[in-house]
Amino acid sequence: MATSTTLATSSIATAIDMPPKSSLHRRKPSEHKAHSSTRRTKDTKYRHVFATHSLPRTSCLSQDSDTLPSFIGFRNLMILVLIVSNLRLMIVNLQKYGVLICISCHDYSRSDVVTGLLLYLLVPAHLFVTYLIELAAAWQAKRAYARISKEDDNDTPAKYAAALRSFNYTWYIVAAFHSINATMNLYIATKYVYYDIYHPGIGTMCELHAVIVFLKCASYALTNRDLRHAYLHPKQADPLPELYKTCSYPQNINMKNLCYFWWAPTLVYQPVYPRTDNIRWSFVFKRLAEVAGLSIVVWIASAQYAAPLLQNSLDKILTLNFTSIAERVMKLSTISVFCWLCGFFALFQSALNALAEVMRFGDREFYGDWWNVHSIRTYWTTWNKPVTNFMRRHIYSPLVGRGVPPAVAQIIVFLFSGVLHELLVGVPTHNIIGVAFMGMMIQIPLIALTDVIQKVKWIQGKVAGNMIFWVSFCLVGQPLAALLYFFAWQGKYGSTSKQIQESPAMHIFHRR
Amino acid sequence: MATSTTLATSSIATAIDMPPKSSLHRRKPSEHKAHSSTRRTKDTKYRHVFATHSLPRTSCLSQDSDTLPSFIGFRNLMILVLIVSNLRLMIVNLQKYGVLICISCHDYSRSDVVTGLLLYLLVPAHLFVTYLIELAAAWQAKRAYARISKEDDNDTPAKYAAALRSFNYTWYIVAAFHSINATMNLYIATKYVYYDIYHPGIGTMCELHAVIVFLKCASYALTNRDLRHAYLHPKQADPLPELYKTCSYPQNINMKNLCYFWWAPTLVYQPVYPRTDNIRWSFVFKRLAEVAGLSIVVWIASAQYAAPLLQNSLDKILTLNFTSIAERVMKLSTISVFCWLCGFFALFQSALNALAEVMRFGDREFYGDWWNVHSIRTYWTTWNKPVTNFMRRHIYSPLVGRGVPPAVAQIIVFLFSGVLHELLVGVPTHNIIGVAFMGMMIQIPLIALTDVIQKVKWIQGKVAGNMIFWVSFCLVGQPLAALLYFFAWQGKYGSTSKQIQESPAMHIFHRR
Repeated sequence: MATSTTLATSSIATAIDMPPKSSLHRRKPSEHKAHSSTRRTKDTKYRHVFATHSLPRTSCLSQDSDTLPSFIGFRNLMILVLIVSNLRLMIVNLQKYGVLICISCHDYSRSDVVTGLLLYLLVPAHLFVTYLIELAAAWQAKRAYARISKEDDNDTPAKYAAALRSFNYTWYIVAAFHSINATMNLYIATKYVYYDIYHPGIGTMCELHAVIVFLKCASYALTNRDLRHAYLHPKQADPLPELYKTCSYPQNINMKNLCYFWWAPTLVYQPVYPRTDNIRWSFVFKRLAEVAGLSIVVWIASAQYAAPLLQNSLDKILTLNFTSIAERVMKLSTISVFCWLCGFFALFQSALNALAEVMRFGDREFYGDWWNVHSIRTYWTTWNKPVTNFMRRHIYSPLVGRGVPPAVAQIIVFLFSGVLHELLVGVPTHNIIGVAFMGMMIQIPLIALTDVIQKVKWIQGKVAGNMIFWVSFCLVGQPLAALLYFFAWQGKYGSTSKQIQESPAMHIFHRR
Repeated sequence: MATSTTLATSSIATAIDMPPKSSLHRRKPSEHKAHSSTRRTKDTKYRHVFATHSLPRTSCLSQDSDTLPSFIGFRNLMILVLIVSNLRLMIVNLQKYGVLICISCHDYSRSDVVTGLLLYLLVPAHLFVTYLIELAAAWQAKRAYARISKEDDNDTPAKYAAALRSFNYTWYIVAAFHSINATMNLYIATKYVYYDIYHPGIGTMCELHAVIVFLKCASYALTNRDLRHAYLHPKQADPLPELYKTCSYPQNINMKNLCYFWWAPTLVYQPVYPRTDNIRWSFVFKRLAEVAGLSIVVWIASAQYAAPLLQNSLDKILTLNFTSIAERVMKLSTISVFCWLCGFFALFQSALNALAEVMRFGDREFYGDWWNVHSIRTYWTTWNKPVTNFMRRHIYSPLVGRGVPPAVAQIIVFLFSGVLHELLVGVPTHNIIGVAFMGMMIQIPLIALTDVIQKVKWIQGKVAGNMIFWVSFCLVGQPLAALLYFFAWQGKYGSTSKQIQESPAMHIFHRR
């Protein structure tokens, strides 16, 4: 009996949607007869007459429709089309070039590696010089503190002004030493990378290392300057963060504390950091495996796909064929955004988390969800939190504190960032052509643009802002910059360098 | 005073995220002094010491993180990468082939158009023959009804059996006439399309028209058979849908009713349909504009992108180079899925809605949200509701009603559908190679596969089911079928036909 009911209901209501398992065996006419009175409207013997069209309904994509259907299936289709079309390009690439990946062969010279290793060992020495300067300053501060303590406690404004003058005088000397030390660090590294390291990969690593140490030195010096001021003027001082109480100035000026800062995954010096209780070694190894895996993926992608693409776009730039350059940039953009995402994850998620775990460093917020940003401003404050934190604490915030308008302070931050970017890209490729610097500078009008656009409601401003970010940064900015530096590199060192030097494109570079 | 507070709060808490507009002018030291006691912790003069790392935090992509961030930005990136990479392919296509679109030139002959128009005029005649047969059957039924009414009202089982026998006897004769008429319709159209219409586009339109009229004839005949039975046996009859009461049998057998069914956007005959109150002509024109626009888009896409792609994949099939065939299918899949989506929207959303509006046809559910389906079974019941409704009412449901297991009934539906697909594709391309038929048949094991997979929880079965649908249908099925029919067409008519006839690939076709 149940069979008949199930069958009858299902045959009309759900029909071929899903075969009811209970009705897979034959239906007996007697059962039908018995139920026809109770479930007449559904269990009819007239199979060909039921009203398929019984109610007015709208098409689900019509504007008349009350609710739009979900489009989640199209997301899946997009993923598949992306996979399939890139798989196809990989087949074409293999058919055209064969396997370009070679494990045993390398293109770096012995002298590059030696210079690189020497720089790697020498650069941190500047951090220790910074430490020595601070040690001297702390010694002087301790003496000053003892002298102040002996004197009367009733601080008059005149006395305070005198003390401040004395403090500032000492600070100018300390700052001069720090500046010389930090600048020498950058200068030496840049000089060796630019003149002695041919391989851009090794060069980038050395330059990056020098920039990190430079920023760490600056943060160590500036933070300790404020800590020293608070130490010497306990009455006039603003309160320091609670966290620092366990290691106040000048106790923090010690070798162990410095070494922790040296290796900690941050560019901002604090006497005390939030710490975790223990090191989860399985976590560390998983993150290191991710770094290794992603590095291999990026290496294969660059060697097999990006390299020939860059190579065969040379003649397009040579003849300034703009349609073809656009085509090359477009093709390069997919591989560049892929490498960028892999590299981002490998560095900011895997490597920094592994380092933080080993250092028991508690604050793992190395990045925010920058992929969802609606404004380019937010992108620059979320993708690289270590640098953002440095810029905010040691450049933007002090400038604004001294009365500089925030907009101007921002421009100064971008100027400084632009110089660092040019150092990191232009120096290792031996072409300080200013593209990386200009790339950072162009962010300022773009920020203004997305700030306006994300507020526009009728064009879904937030989506538009996000799209502008992706287009400007990943689909145009990065591949175009890569192409230009590769072209400049080839012009200097490539086999077709003479041709490139005489090309109309090179004249544009030279005219600058 | 407000300025100072805003500035101090913003400089540390939000820093360069957003420049507070109220603090754009210079800050006065006196203001700072006045407020330093009330808002000490935030408004500190120590700019370089605030604790950037004050709390343990996880990276948002870590597994330790409580909530995963949104990934909506990556959806936008996917859309952009798809646009950019296809824009690039369009540039490459233009550079390689130039503009292939030509408005004045056409490749159809005068005789094709004449035969096509003749078929277009003659095919509906079969619907009128169906009408005449039903008119005769209704006349006979009215006579039988009069005879029954005159007799005693006490129906005995014996009398009922005799009446049923008589009814069935008449029905066999009526059914024979209908079968001959409907089969002749298909036969004549198929014969002319196959032998006399060279152009596959015109051929497809004629064959599609014939199939639609065939299905309408069948539905008209089968529905009126059940209505007649209910009319002649009012006592034993199951109730008919309420909707039909305004036009009961045999009043519905009239010219106006038939003509409405002829033009109504449905394949299922009902004496009465849900209707709308008036025709919104602006709606009609918008839909027609969509049809025109999308047709042009599909035409450009096929002429400029699909045609050269198909052309230069011939030699790949010729030499049975499977890697290259796979590459061609992959390239074809994007353009084919694009054309399919445009074509679907143009036909099922725009054209059928326009027709429904003009006919004041109320039920506009011509499709469901098939793009989200988790199972291939659901795809086949949602993408084309007019055909699904026909299959459900006139094949699946009657079969199940007669005791055929639903699974078998489904296979029969797919067999019938496979034959229709082969008619619609094989006949106009003059190559009944069975690919379309086999394409439908392969849906049966695929349905079984997705039925199982969508229930698997740990691999997100629903997403997997949807992916399988897209891959099997749009990314492999359609482009592969298009390639095979194009190859077969070229083998018969193309300039390289001799080469193709002697190729190893053709032997596979012939061995069938």
